[in-house]
Amino acid sequence: MPASGMQSPRVVIVGGGFGGLYAAKALSNEAVDVTLLDRKNHHTFQPLLYQVALGVLSPGEVASPLRQILHPARNLRTLLGEVVGIDAAARTVRLSDGEAVAYEYLILAAGARHAYFGRDEWAHHAPGLKTIEDAVGIRSRLLLAFERAERQAHLSGRREPLSFAIIGGGPTGVELAGAIADLARLALAKDFNAINTKQARIRLFEGGPRILSALSEDSSRKAARQLEQLGVEVCTESLVQTVESGRIKVRDEWIATDLTLWASGVAPSLLGKMLGAAMDRSVRVLVEQDLSVPGHREVFVIGYMAALVDANGTPVPGLAAAAMQEGQQAARNILRDLQGRPRESFRYTDRGSMATVGHHRAVAEFGRWHLSGILAWLLWSIVHVFLLIGFRNRAAVMRQWMWAYATRKGGSPLITDCQQPEAARHAK
Amino acid sequence: MPASGMQSPRVVIVGGGFGGLYAAKALSNEAVDVTLLDRKNHHTFQPLLYQVALGVLSPGEVASPLRQILHPARNLRTLLGEVVGIDAAARTVRLSDGEAVAYEYLILAAGARHAYFGRDEWAHHAPGLKTIEDAVGIRSRLLLAFERAERQAHLSGRREPLSFAIIGGGPTGVELAGAIADLARLALAKDFNAINTKQARIRLFEGGPRILSALSEDSSRKAARQLEQLGVEVCTESLVQTVESGRIKVRDEWIATDLTLWASGVAPSLLGKMLGAAMDRSVRVLVEQDLSVPGHREVFVIGYMAALVDANGTPVPGLAAAAMQEGQQAARNILRDLQGRPRESFRYTDRGSMATVGHHRAVAEFGRWHLSGILAWLLWSIVHVFLLIGFRNRAAVMRQWMWAYATRKGGSPLITDCQQPEAARHAK
Repeated sequence: MPASGMQSPRVVIVGGGFGGLYAAKALSNEAVDVTLLDRKNHHTFQPLLYQVALGVLSPGEVASPLRQILHPARNLRTLLGEVVGIDAAARTVRLSDGEAVAYEYLILAAGARHAYFGRDEWAHHAPGLKTIEDAVGIRSRLLLAFERAERQAHLSGRREPLSFAIIGGGPTGVELAGAIADLARLALAKDFNAINTKQARIRLFEGGPRILSALSEDSSRKAARQLEQLGVEVCTESLVQTVESGRIKVRDEWIATDLTLWASGVAPSLLGKMLGAAMDRSVRVLVEQDLSVPGHREVFVIGYMAALVDANGTPVPGLAAAAMQEGQQAARNILRDLQGRPRESFRYTDRGSMATVGHHRAVAEFGRWHLSGILAWLLWSIVHVFLLIGFRNRAAVMRQWMWAYATRKGGSPLITDCQQPEAARHAK
Repeated sequence: MPASGMQSPRVVIVGGGFGGLYAAKALSNEAVDVTLLDRKNHHTFQPLLYQVALGVLSPGEVASPLRQILHPARNLRTLLGEVVGIDAAARTVRLSDGEAVAYEYLILAAGARHAYFGRDEWAHHAPGLKTIEDAVGIRSRLLLAFERAERQAHLSGRREPLSFAIIGGGPTGVELAGAIADLARLALAKDFNAINTKQARIRLFEGGPRILSALSEDSSRKAARQLEQLGVEVCTESLVQTVESGRIKVRDEWIATDLTLWASGVAPSLLGKMLGAAMDRSVRVLVEQDLSVPGHREVFVIGYMAALVDANGTPVPGLAAAAMQEGQQAARNILRDLQGRPRESFRYTDRGSMATVGHHRAVAEFGRWHLSGILAWLLWSIVHVFLLIGFRNRAAVMRQWMWAYATRKGGSPLITDCQQPEAARHAK
């Protein structure tokens, strides 16, 4: 450990997601000087973001200012800034307004972004869900679809049932589909009278043979059955060919939609490319067992940006749980350097997987234990409230859920887009 | 009252603010068929909007979906739509997408919009506060100013103290100035370490000789003293001549600002012009004693859009309280028509005025009773929670206030603009 009076090594962490935040927390009150850089001033608890999109929770309940999370530790500092360059030789990162930040250690934890398989123009017609802004935008588009249908039905006398398409059968797609079904069947049913919101068609399109392909076939099947109980049509082997305004093409057939949502794949942040390090096919940085970049022991890449088969031979999955564990390991390896001890290899601990499907429905797996239904849903709720960053958010989320449970209503279904959403400009 | 089987008269209300909402509530479960039209899907409780701008409250706590407020009454219907034309002869209003809505009675209650004295280009550099979007935008710009200063101070070693300018010494300007002072002195003080947020200069510019000119000189003086105790510089006789990016010109002197806010005047909605009725100098519709438009007994104009010296000889002020009373009166006059009874003249009841200045500070007047300090502040809090629409919001706002009081922290200081705010693009 550096003697008193010596300058503490500067650790720069890029990204305030799960990986970056757990790394920062593991370095708090240690003999390092930590600067966390993020484009946003808040950590976003992405597992509950879909509830903001559905109006159950409000942005302040799933996001916490990084400054408030980290300020109790005196050696941690938060700076709002967008990293646009990394000079690994000079050991500095460059911010979008030209400022440079020097480091002795760098932890890159910038996570994932939406990927539209090279069809970036689809983004406009099928928004994805990664940020608070995304969630508020989707909430507005979703509610506008109901409002527009109600107005048309009232003024013209008739209107086709609403049609929603969710592209991608992973956990986010399943959560969105189930939650939209809850919204149409429960929360909004009484508020509209010219349309019957329960008649809305909600279709989940998955290119592969089954939804939730990261879980067992057994859980996939159960999740599909639970979605169908909610009225969601689960369409597997249904790769989407084209996304346009108001319609999508699946299996050579055009399907009219009032809203299309994208839950079909993300790609690592482009920051990895700036390192000039070796990458895998998915543009993830191939890291060493200690999570550092080959040739740059002082640079760690963690979370979705990193590709690694760990010391146990397990390919580390791109999940929040893995990012948290990697963040802690990268921090420990920096501290071991300072203590003159050898670094440790990262070993991923699988603590299980789960996905919620809707009101009282979920699936969960812990090794050979498979759960589904209300028990899995209760477990999902407890785990997610427990993992939420910040006591205040936990209390607020629990209150909102109890309210939603008691009243079967959403929280604050406000349409508050800054810009008129694309969907609203195309009357059907 | 129409005999059973007869079609109920169609009442169209344009605007879901205080006037429109109180009119709708007064018509609920009566023998009329009411359609409330609004561009937004929610009522915004404007008196607390500045607390959203300051991050104390979240959007869902000061806004309620109109549909949820009104749906319990079976004769009330809400439609989301922007009125772009009124054909008083044909008794229809036209919506922006071309649809027409017919009425037997029309209540225009579209309120006010920002007015920049003909200098619309100022809007970009000095945002005003009327909608949830405005409030979220101001919150982001405000917090970005602190974040930018912290980054510059940390990376370059020094930074001028922050400078905030609020233009307009009415209730909104006073609330904003006091609340920004609270934010800098209390809520943010511990979260930043490279800058001292308490050194921020907060200046309130008023063109006239005193702030809160609608109240007595006594209250003006007390409010100015309370603001100064919070560290706000109150500049009267200081008409702003020019507003640009990063600076304003006052009394021929340029003043650098990190954020300029506009609280200096609103103008009535342009819908009044569409009627072709006589208007006063401020573009407000000159209405009859029964609140109807001369020559169109079936059209009522209420709230900020209407100009009236009431039956007691009192010029009706452009306040929320007046809009509520007018909404109720317009509704009563419609019902009296249906009952074959003569209409009543509107008489404004002054229930007093108040303005909050900041933490524990406010002024209030009820006729000859003048209050200031913590007692006025408590009263202000009670009245505003009581007036908040919807039980749920009341409970949530009280909880947030108690939390803020206990912790001296804001609620959710999130920067979540859809667009990068203008201020952020101009590094100082």
